[in-house]
Amino acid sequence: MRYDLSATLIPTGDEFLMMTIQVMGIHGLPIIHAGDDLAALICERTAFEDGDILCIASSVSAKANGQTRNLTEIEPTERAIAIAAAAGEDPRFIQVILDASVDVLLESPFILAAVPCGHIGVRAGVDRSNVEDDIAIILPPDPMAAAAGIREDIRRIAGRTVAVILTDTCGRAFRRGQTGHAVGWSGVTAIRDFRGDTDLFGRPLTITEEAIVDEIAGFANIVMGESSNGVPAVVVRGLPAWQGHDRLYFRPEEDVMRRALATSRQNLKSAP
Amino acid sequence: MRYDLSATLIPTGDEFLMMTIQVMGIHGLPIIHAGDDLAALICERTAFEDGDILCIASSVSAKANGQTRNLTEIEPTERAIAIAAAAGEDPRFIQVILDASVDVLLESPFILAAVPCGHIGVRAGVDRSNVEDDIAIILPPDPMAAAAGIREDIRRIAGRTVAVILTDTCGRAFRRGQTGHAVGWSGVTAIRDFRGDTDLFGRPLTITEEAIVDEIAGFANIVMGESSNGVPAVVVRGLPAWQGHDRLYFRPEEDVMRRALATSRQNLKSAP
Repeated sequence: MRYDLSATLIPTGDEFLMMTIQVMGIHGLPIIHAGDDLAALICERTAFEDGDILCIASSVSAKANGQTRNLTEIEPTERAIAIAAAAGEDPRFIQVILDASVDVLLESPFILAAVPCGHIGVRAGVDRSNVEDDIAIILPPDPMAAAAGIREDIRRIAGRTVAVILTDTCGRAFRRGQTGHAVGWSGVTAIRDFRGDTDLFGRPLTITEEAIVDEIAGFANIVMGESSNGVPAVVVRGLPAWQGHDRLYFRPEEDVMRRALATSRQNLKSAP
Repeated sequence: MRYDLSATLIPTGDEFLMMTIQVMGIHGLPIIHAGDDLAALICERTAFEDGDILCIASSVSAKANGQTRNLTEIEPTERAIAIAAAAGEDPRFIQVILDASVDVLLESPFILAAVPCGHIGVRAGVDRSNVEDDIAIILPPDPMAAAAGIREDIRRIAGRTVAVILTDTCGRAFRRGQTGHAVGWSGVTAIRDFRGDTDLFGRPLTITEEAIVDEIAGFANIVMGESSNGVPAVVVRGLPAWQGHDRLYFRPEEDVMRRALATSRQNLKSAP
């Protein structure tokens, strides 16, 4: 393991290395609107170094790209009206969620849905926070392309090669509270692959795939915050490079939880 | 939001603050054995500051406290033998998992079980990595007390007030790969509670509870690694304090995924 950047050597009686990773919020960004040059606004406020990982709230990327829906222009379907009535929600908001979804795993007590990129999230990641009334932000429909675009823009504007992770705040199974998750990334692989590595005693590892983009997105989320003093972009500096792959999402047939939810739904439907 | 430590002010044309959080692996720790003074070994290798958050792999805490089982001394029950046969595992290892569990949510394709503290994990968190043959490490049976004990030891040895998070590497629903999760903590609350906060437009937030200990544990896990060059302890410096609560685990009756798994299991059992 090698830390390429910002490595701090602290010699002591016992020789060891203390390597430092830095995590910095990018402050002073204005509220983002459709058409804003997000990369330029970030570059004006950041002295990037090659190898930095830039985490951006996916909602901010979506706003810059105009990936929002105006509820006043939505005509809800019967299905949206039925789900909304059961959930006490605005049927137009539910319609936006259904439009963004490729598979609805759960309708109650909350909508849990898969979006085209493979991510599964509550309300399909559709968000009404930090936007004007009647506006809903959808997740970037192609978050990988959005991350790659920002990465290219930063290379062009600042002449630096960085990685970009688009984040969303999501709930988890079994545990209360939300954490930051990666929904798009560019310049790094999602998974660090330990297959072939051995443990301290030379045996093959049982933990073999680490979802490192989610671990980064989670920590960035702490710095971002959720409220009016939130910071939508965070730089991680000093992480060593890793090798791996991008298959972050289970295929439906290998996803135990998804199968259990499907079985459980069918059960409810067939109940007398 | 205030960053108490390590704050770096970088003035630019547009006035803003770039605040830095530092994350440092503690290198040079020996392989830990039962009876080792883990806090002392860590303090010898770390210049702690008040407010630091120390993340420790729970397996290392368990080893220091002798919370291991020797498989040569285990007599598997019929249930363990049956599960082991289906899974191609050692029935003694399965017995250790059953002994550590209070509720088995899933037996196949992997064992998913709740442990007394509320955590739900694959193989109940029982681990055979980085230990001698025939030894299985169980999760600390009282991880909150273990974290508090290390925190007290550090205060006594180094005179510093730090927070401690015990971490484990866990899979997630819907997403491949494991990430670091918190299983015990002391000196911080598990959840940062945003209830009552407003968004940029003054409306109540929908995301209201952030599982900040899991976000920290995840990032620390990147530095820890899993293999023979792993680093079992990581210091996070410069995070601002937060307010919240410690109810990290859903109660069974409010846990949608747990209910779905239970329904799905009953379905399988009642199938012809």
